[in-house]
Amino acid sequence: MFIILYYDVNQKRCNKMLKVCRKYLQWVQNSVFEGEISNANYERLVHEIKQIIKKEEGDSVIIYRFKMMYYSKREVLGNDKKEDITFI
Amino acid sequence: MFIILYYDVNQKRCNKMLKVCRKYLQWVQNSVFEGEISNANYERLVHEIKQIIKKEEGDSVIIYRFKMMYYSKREVLGNDKKEDITFI
Repeated sequence: MFIILYYDVNQKRCNKMLKVCRKYLQWVQNSVFEGEISNANYERLVHEIKQIIKKEEGDSVIIYRFKMMYYSKREVLGNDKKEDITFI
Repeated sequence: MFIILYYDVNQKRCNKMLKVCRKYLQWVQNSVFEGEISNANYERLVHEIKQIIKKEEGDSVIIYRFKMMYYSKREVLGNDKKEDITFI
């Protein structure tokens, strides 16, 4: 599946979030990630995020999951800062 | 159609972007907006954004357009900061 993820977390936790998200997705811009991900990796990603965020301190993570992207279009105005896909 | 929009623009232009995006969409978190929008309003939004951003200074706006959201799911971890829909 394809997902779009964006987070708004306390400054103290930004680096940890960046590190976890980069393991599974491509960085697009400040606290925004995109990418194809397997169900198994999705579960891992969510599990790791839940270990980091603190709801009581206002942390927020929004994830859009798409079974298919057939009905969508990605448009860029200005520059596209999306990192190239890094093959591990 | 439903769109997800996120921008990464020079600090000087953030307020202008916030103001334009709020006219058509709901604020979700820092520089991230979502919402249903008509084709006509979508054209207006893009036109207004193009008047603001400066590609040569690295400004970036990513827009995902979805004809239908049937194959998607929105998941929230932590808090959902999405503004309620404001009826003008």
